[in-house]
Amino acid sequence: MQLGMIGLGRMGSNMAQRLMKHGHDCVVYDTRAESMVELQSLGAKGSTSLQEFVSTLTKPRAVWLMLPAAVVDKVLAQLVPLLDKDDIVIDGGNSYYHDDIRRSGELKSSGIHYVDVGTSGGIFGFERGYCLMIGGEKDIVQHLSPIFAALAPGKGNVPETPSRLENPVAGSTADQGYLHCGPHGAGHFVKMVHNGIEYGLMAAYAEGLNILRNADIGLRSHEVDAETTPLQNPEHYQYEFNLPDIAEVWRRGSVVSSWLLDLTADALHGDPALASYEGRVSDSGEGRWTVMAAIDEAIPTPVLSAALQERFSSRGNADFANKILSAMRREFGGHVEKQAPKPAG
Amino acid sequence: MQLGMIGLGRMGSNMAQRLMKHGHDCVVYDTRAESMVELQSLGAKGSTSLQEFVSTLTKPRAVWLMLPAAVVDKVLAQLVPLLDKDDIVIDGGNSYYHDDIRRSGELKSSGIHYVDVGTSGGIFGFERGYCLMIGGEKDIVQHLSPIFAALAPGKGNVPETPSRLENPVAGSTADQGYLHCGPHGAGHFVKMVHNGIEYGLMAAYAEGLNILRNADIGLRSHEVDAETTPLQNPEHYQYEFNLPDIAEVWRRGSVVSSWLLDLTADALHGDPALASYEGRVSDSGEGRWTVMAAIDEAIPTPVLSAALQERFSSRGNADFANKILSAMRREFGGHVEKQAPKPAG
Amino acid sequence: MQLGMIGLGRMGSNMAQRLMKHGHDCVVYDTRAESMVELQSLGAKGSTSLQEFVSTLTKPRAVWLMLPAAVVDKVLAQLVPLLDKDDIVIDGGNSYYHDDIRRSGELKSSGIHYVDVGTSGGIFGFERGYCLMIGGEKDIVQHLSPIFAALAPGKGNVPETPSRLENPVAGSTADQGYLHCGPHGAGHFVKMVHNGIEYGLMAAYAEGLNILRNADIGLRSHEVDAETTPLQNPEHYQYEFNLPDIAEVWRRGSVVSSWLLDLTADALHGDPALASYEGRVSDSGEGRWTVMAAIDEAIPTPVLSAALQERFSSRGNADFANKILSAMRREFGGHVEKQAPKPAG
Amino acid sequence: MQLGMIGLGRMGSNMAQRLMKHGHDCVVYDTRAESMVELQSLGAKGSTSLQEFVSTLTKPRAVWLMLPAAVVDKVLAQLVPLLDKDDIVIDGGNSYYHDDIRRSGELKSSGIHYVDVGTSGGIFGFERGYCLMIGGEKDIVQHLSPIFAALAPGKGNVPETPSRLENPVAGSTADQGYLHCGPHGAGHFVKMVHNGIEYGLMAAYAEGLNILRNADIGLRSHEVDAETTPLQNPEHYQYEFNLPDIAEVWRRGSVVSSWLLDLTADALHGDPALASYEGRVSDSGEGRWTVMAAIDEAIPTPVLSAALQERFSSRGNADFANKILSAMRREFGGHVEKQAPKPAG
Repeated sequence: MQLGMIGLGRMGSNMAQRLMKHGHDCVVYDTRAESMVELQSLGAKGSTSLQEFVSTLTKPRAVWLMLPAAVVDKVLAQLVPLLDKDDIVIDGGNSYYHDDIRRSGELKSSGIHYVDVGTSGGIFGFERGYCLMIGGEKDIVQHLSPIFAALAPGKGNVPETPSRLENPVAGSTADQGYLHCGPHGAGHFVKMVHNGIEYGLMAAYAEGLNILRNADIGLRSHEVDAETTPLQNPEHYQYEFNLPDIAEVWRRGSVVSSWLLDLTADALHGDPALASYEGRVSDSGEGRWTVMAAIDEAIPTPVLSAALQERFSSRGNADFANKILSAMRREFGGHVEKQAPKPAG
Repeated sequence: MQLGMIGLGRMGSNMAQRLMKHGHDCVVYDTRAESMVELQSLGAKGSTSLQEFVSTLTKPRAVWLMLPAAVVDKVLAQLVPLLDKDDIVIDGGNSYYHDDIRRSGELKSSGIHYVDVGTSGGIFGFERGYCLMIGGEKDIVQHLSPIFAALAPGKGNVPETPSRLENPVAGSTADQGYLHCGPHGAGHFVKMVHNGIEYGLMAAYAEGLNILRNADIGLRSHEVDAETTPLQNPEHYQYEFNLPDIAEVWRRGSVVSSWLLDLTADALHGDPALASYEGRVSDSGEGRWTVMAAIDEAIPTPVLSAALQERFSSRGNADFANKILSAMRREFGGHVEKQAPKPAG
Repeated sequence: MQLGMIGLGRMGSNMAQRLMKHGHDCVVYDTRAESMVELQSLGAKGSTSLQEFVSTLTKPRAVWLMLPAAVVDKVLAQLVPLLDKDDIVIDGGNSYYHDDIRRSGELKSSGIHYVDVGTSGGIFGFERGYCLMIGGEKDIVQHLSPIFAALAPGKGNVPETPSRLENPVAGSTADQGYLHCGPHGAGHFVKMVHNGIEYGLMAAYAEGLNILRNADIGLRSHEVDAETTPLQNPEHYQYEFNLPDIAEVWRRGSVVSSWLLDLTADALHGDPALASYEGRVSDSGEGRWTVMAAIDEAIPTPVLSAALQERFSSRGNADFANKILSAMRREFGGHVEKQAPKPAG
Repeated sequence: MQLGMIGLGRMGSNMAQRLMKHGHDCVVYDTRAESMVELQSLGAKGSTSLQEFVSTLTKPRAVWLMLPAAVVDKVLAQLVPLLDKDDIVIDGGNSYYHDDIRRSGELKSSGIHYVDVGTSGGIFGFERGYCLMIGGEKDIVQHLSPIFAALAPGKGNVPETPSRLENPVAGSTADQGYLHCGPHGAGHFVKMVHNGIEYGLMAAYAEGLNILRNADIGLRSHEVDAETTPLQNPEHYQYEFNLPDIAEVWRRGSVVSSWLLDLTADALHGDPALASYEGRVSDSGEGRWTVMAAIDEAIPTPVLSAALQERFSSRGNADFANKILSAMRREFGGHVEKQAPKPAG
């Protein structure tokens, strides 16, 4: 079927290519004309303006936005007046699900349908397929299913879940890698939590590998002073572990194998000390929104919260709090801050 | 080659079978004679006593202990006097690496070699192979490599790590699923951290799914009183998610795919409300030891610690602390504890 | 000066009494007429309706609302039409500071001034005085200063801060127990963070006392099975501590002395096992809002977040997450949940 | 009565002075002779050697060690051979309670008694008195009670605990500021947990003040890029708070008043930006031991653990973990680390 794609960054461009590879027609638009060139060579119809883009599409139109969350509302303000009743707008980016709920309401009065799609897969999605979490009206989502099926990985070589084999679910597309999760916002809600989990998984590996990295602490010399806790049993910390090999060995047969571990093994083998990184870790909105949703629901999320906050700390945002601790220690105990040698890092 | 196996529980028995399937000879011993029957039918030599077990083995003997950590020292006290110089004892269970360091020192005087092997794979290991993390002397580990290779998964259908393809490591067995990690204790140290990470990964999924499970909180009625924080935007929490389908869809193409997620999808499909569980979560020693090692190293592990502590809480161990909070609130604000309806759980 | 007080629960009633004790005139109103009786006997003017209440007050009127956060907007909707330009509305309850910002904007068009006051002190405030954190326009706050000074504790017998003695601050009322913190919302923002800190302080004591309470774990019998981690050194946990005495001794000379500790010592002496509590701990909105503000600011708050989440857990809200952990453990390791005896609690 | 004091650093010297002020006789010893001069001028008997120190004391001798934990065993090795049956050794420093249990056992064979005293009060103890947590044999502790009473603050002007007034405890010294907590190690166990709590309290204030410090984030300019989460409501973060005044106002009448807050107010008034600190926060052993004890007891301590780990992070010990996060993000999403401007700190 035909899909219009607005926003041809790495994600949007790869998705359009994957759709065309699966036999769909793509009409594309991006304010940067050069981002359309390759897609046009592969068969996409480019557009020099939103007007042209809209008029090229067959009604009822299906327009997929693959844009930074911050610009979606701006583009919608230009796009919506050009659309007609029964057209469909799909937001496949990382919008806050609150915005989906609001937007779907706003578009409803014009008879335009809104679908929110949380898209996971990153830069590997063109090849692996994208995991799609979808929110919106049932029949609209149904109508778009050829698109979703093409973008998603399909069953692939992932082993079937044993209990699903025993007790199959009629009509579920979950094992194809895409899923209608619920009404407006449901797709981005599920994607938000997916990313919150991702933060927790990443932090678990990072903390564990940091323990391994510093298992040689008993081999290092230590300052002896009142501000340094002595290592009680240096003989227990004499290990100089090969982290790339450990990450690699865990990929096969262990309980902690995962795609994130695959990536970690790759990164560590290329640069075992990760010397090309500073360790300032950005967070996109989803990790924050996940914890905020958990607070609204009164659900404890110590792991997901800690993972988020480690990122804040990595950017120096705990500095003032730490200064307060040093100031208190000086006040009550006369302790003077010391400059300790850092651990291997 | 020949291996003696002591301890024929689920793990030991499956490992012996896997070794025999790969052409190795197994001499087996367990105080429960019935546990030897099946293995004997598959070709293993059973023993009615430790003495017989030891005398059946060819020198230099290789004896693999697959026992609960708590009984290893007791069995060693009986076994070691029967062994000879150059024999090898392998502890494949979940010993604390401190014990490995001690034991290897104790055995050294008798010329007996000690190897510690952290074994991951659980009840699926017979089929998938076991991920093996090994500590001990280099030549001894080398000598045992046919055994390790048979127990490990091998390369299998796990995709090769791209940076390793580009820049191969001569002689590393990491991509075969087994690895000599370092001197005595190194195997169990790496396995300990592996399990610490496992706790963190599990908690990340569990917390995220709990948020999804309670995303219908805006649909429920709420008590209105001074002790209940009102939900500010009920319209944001109107989702009744299908958790089995969500876990399933994440298995393909998403960033959070993993073996633990595969298992979670299986469990949720069979029992979506997990009504057959109470949620009292045991912890074996490794999670505790991981956090203690991190403390010795002064390495922050907020995620791994939180995951461990959630398990303590799940068993009611925060109850007294919570009573103190209620008592304080009553003292300063006259707040009376209330019985709120639980969220879906 | 004259103040109108709406809302005569424990807080509002005590505050009116404290104001009258300091020579101020109070006009009071509450929908429950019986709550005015005692105050009237002490000299307050009661009102049978909002209309009467407003007409009794001298212009420019000063009206203090001491109401549950959830009803403030409803009362304002009735009250504001009765007020005149230059009148002042003070919200002394626990409103979300977002609401202060909104309301002050709404009232501005009518020329009515809005002041937000975070009030700490609980049921002891009548005697000790209330710590007041104030947001609003400078001259309006200045105008109300006699009221604030009467409600606040004043210098009292709290020792002066040494660096303030050395280097005094002209015009600051901070050492009187009340403070103009900034523009609209500033008072409730500071009170919100105050409560967030309170959660953290409370949890620190509660966790520490729980460790002391269970320091006899080496004296108890333990189940020996694969699902129970054995206590490595029972000889280190043979203490049966007297918690009331320990809380009491810390009140004098220790680094952890505080008013919250005073209250804890009182509660523990009266009921050392806290048997009259179940340990279901409510949270009012402030702890949640504090963590949400920290997330917006990208400021790490592991302690404040953990304290909030412990309260969620205390109400059973982690149950489903824990069931997931049990289900995963069963899937990969065949582990069956066990019912362990609870620790003392 | 007479007490021998070994170790005349700030703590030991102040304690000897306080004892003499209360009429006790002090025999003092320190390897640095100059540290005895002032005490001698106040009436203490100095000693040029351990031998002289011991021979000056009347039997049964009472010797108080006020030494860094790391040197206690070394001094004991020299001291004990000089002592006689029925002499008493008191360790008033910050020893690990495991060491108390061991040492008391070692000294028992010589008939020498051991008492462990956790001492809180810091550099203010001379004036305020020291809070003493005591472990050892009942009659020995009883024998030393004049010493403890002199060092402790006594009832002072701390208000009596209401429930203790109603229902007094015969014979308890808790309200005098010293307490026999239990057998050997009990004093240092209670002091250890006291310090664990202290970490939690400190962190709660520090995190809260950090939120206040950054409440002006809506006034700052922000980078707009894919790696920076936009601030959703800048109008909510327009506050430039006066932290010294806020800490000061909380000292009177609020729920969060405490001695630690008193110190914080003092530090902030002297240096509101805490520019003289770097924020590298040391940890002495007690915070670590507290969390380890909690793990042995399986008691959740999310707040105390987080407080400890923030200190580790403040010293750069999370750096490698953070690099792993950056490396993972690059692998799956092509994200490049960015250098963001730090918040006010």
